[in-house]
Amino acid sequence: MKNTFADRMKNTRKSFIREILKVTQQPEVISFAGGLPNPGFFPVEEIASASKKVLENDGRNVLQYSTSEGYLPLREFIAERYLIKSGLKIEPDEILITNGSQQGIDLIGKVFLNKGDRVIIERPGYLGAIQAFSIFEPNFRPVPLLDDGIDTDLLDKALREDNAKLLYTIPNFQNPSGITYSGQKRKDVANILEKHNVICVEDNAYGELRFTGEDLPSIRNYLDNIILLGSFSKIISPGLRIGWICAGKEIMEKLIVVKQAADLHSNYLSQRIVNQYLMDNDIDEHIMKIRVAYGKRRDLMIDMIAEYFPKEVRYTKPEGGMFIWVTLPGRVSSMDLFELAVKENVAFVPGNPFYVYDSSRINTLRLNFSNSDEEQIEEGIKRLARCSERLLENVN
Amino acid sequence: MKNTFADRMKNTRKSFIREILKVTQQPEVISFAGGLPNPGFFPVEEIASASKKVLENDGRNVLQYSTSEGYLPLREFIAERYLIKSGLKIEPDEILITNGSQQGIDLIGKVFLNKGDRVIIERPGYLGAIQAFSIFEPNFRPVPLLDDGIDTDLLDKALREDNAKLLYTIPNFQNPSGITYSGQKRKDVANILEKHNVICVEDNAYGELRFTGEDLPSIRNYLDNIILLGSFSKIISPGLRIGWICAGKEIMEKLIVVKQAADLHSNYLSQRIVNQYLMDNDIDEHIMKIRVAYGKRRDLMIDMIAEYFPKEVRYTKPEGGMFIWVTLPGRVSSMDLFELAVKENVAFVPGNPFYVYDSSRINTLRLNFSNSDEEQIEEGIKRLARCSERLLENVN
Repeated sequence: MKNTFADRMKNTRKSFIREILKVTQQPEVISFAGGLPNPGFFPVEEIASASKKVLENDGRNVLQYSTSEGYLPLREFIAERYLIKSGLKIEPDEILITNGSQQGIDLIGKVFLNKGDRVIIERPGYLGAIQAFSIFEPNFRPVPLLDDGIDTDLLDKALREDNAKLLYTIPNFQNPSGITYSGQKRKDVANILEKHNVICVEDNAYGELRFTGEDLPSIRNYLDNIILLGSFSKIISPGLRIGWICAGKEIMEKLIVVKQAADLHSNYLSQRIVNQYLMDNDIDEHIMKIRVAYGKRRDLMIDMIAEYFPKEVRYTKPEGGMFIWVTLPGRVSSMDLFELAVKENVAFVPGNPFYVYDSSRINTLRLNFSNSDEEQIEEGIKRLARCSERLLENVN
Repeated sequence: MKNTFADRMKNTRKSFIREILKVTQQPEVISFAGGLPNPGFFPVEEIASASKKVLENDGRNVLQYSTSEGYLPLREFIAERYLIKSGLKIEPDEILITNGSQQGIDLIGKVFLNKGDRVIIERPGYLGAIQAFSIFEPNFRPVPLLDDGIDTDLLDKALREDNAKLLYTIPNFQNPSGITYSGQKRKDVANILEKHNVICVEDNAYGELRFTGEDLPSIRNYLDNIILLGSFSKIISPGLRIGWICAGKEIMEKLIVVKQAADLHSNYLSQRIVNQYLMDNDIDEHIMKIRVAYGKRRDLMIDMIAEYFPKEVRYTKPEGGMFIWVTLPGRVSSMDLFELAVKENVAFVPGNPFYVYDSSRINTLRLNFSNSDEEQIEEGIKRLARCSERLLENVN
């Protein structure tokens, strides 16, 4: 018998990164490919202690079914943190606990997107969002990123040509580019979206990981019709899959219905563990450790690129997060570089999967710096530089 | 601004049970409403010990991102158990770990259902499946349950009239009815589905909880084109949200793509905890304890109904699971009974939400026996019997 899949499956593709990661899992490979936080900074002992505590004190409840919205004290913590960190007044009822912010994207797609609805994404854009939204068969409209955030002229133009339902954005240390929206850009985006009646989805998965510069306001400070996505993956642990959606009452009602249909509720033991961890530890102190460590790795990678890469290669200098975005000279393909690099046992993600409309010749690539040690960064970038030089010579 | 939700949101409704549970959460209420396993039988200490072990021995990995398919040793355990318990040869690659079997239903809906595709469900049917499939706007065709399983004459007739993509079934101790398919019925269903080229989705959430009689074969023993759903929720803990889908290679490839888009992967700490628990403990010994305990509760509830309920009331005598299905005389509404019962501080779920096409006068109701103690069952059924008598007198 031939299986007849739903039409939406025609738009899905296997994760390119997933396939790349399979190639690069040998221990001798220095990999800048994954998007992994550094496990050396997971609070393993503190999580073990929190787990022990919640199971000892409230084991029967912790292992039982729970509410779709998520554990109230955890939602209260998140709401309070929005106030402290961003001056945003959020009610705990405006928070829904999800399996990482990835599930937030899926639920938003379910609630909002009809087939053919237009979704504005950044170019290059976050692969996980492209994958999650693709299931709902939208019409993607990528708008390029400039050094200070999305190109607002082109955003306005795109919306004047054909309105959209959602804009998906990562204003802080974007994945894959590392770019951060300037303060002015955030206001401009809010104004444009309000004028065109488009809902903003602001994903702040990396916002806590700032190494330099000042924290900038959420777009929500300037815009009412906005949905925020957050996550403990980058600051506590991704394996626990605890993230959240923050949205106003009318949208939240719909989100809870689809969350319940999707999996009843998020893992309750992990919600309780995260909450206990947050009660017993100073999360800001912990985040500061990660910031310092990642900042050093970023500095080293930038220094190494500046010293060893061919001068024609451009790259972002992110103020936080986990990624640097490299642009090779126009005629050079990053897939060709990837093939050379793998032979030298060094890996990265070619830019291709971050563009919705595949172009065969892409000259960009993503480097992750969070999950390598100093030695790996030094050696890996040297190898990558040699491969780039060789490739450029061949092209010239 | 007015939010414009996707068309699919018109088909969704808040969970009726969820709303009922809110009414009945006062401690003085004896509730047969929820579908909760009895937390008195959660292996709290063993889970605490498993959690300690995996975090101590492999903390950094356990808290890191993991694969979308799920932890291989856990998938191997599940595959092996299919062989031992049901004689089914399953490869670990045919298993995908999900957030409870509920997420399995969502992922199957995503992979298979176009708007308007026909889905056969049992009548009465599992509410969680109705909710999850509804998101994909199918055309439900309910086929009545008889004492020995789905009415195969009507199933065949329905498929001859208009073919379907999926049949969703719970052959063991069905929710809400408690009905179990006979051995012959399983063969007949397989034959009919094969003839019409319909995929079977067999949800076995309760199959391990048999009190009397013999285990019966999975429909997969007679049918190739079948997807199995399983869960540790009823035998270990539902709060951990660990279930699985078992499907052939072609379908599994699609399921992994949508799983990744939905939430990257299931909670990895919990997968590791469940796996450790299964390595260190005899799960069959644990299941036997639950069987004995639930079996006693079932017997008591059946005895009490037989003794106190009006003689015109009919009810199922499930061989396992967590539910008894009660049918009041035709002219009596279970919603009317619910209103009387709540005043007497006893609760259950009226049959309404288990029918796709709402009928105002439903004379059936679901009683859960797993989550009450003996005293509560005795007192609760007496009260319910008094309410039923009063209602019948008024109607006569």
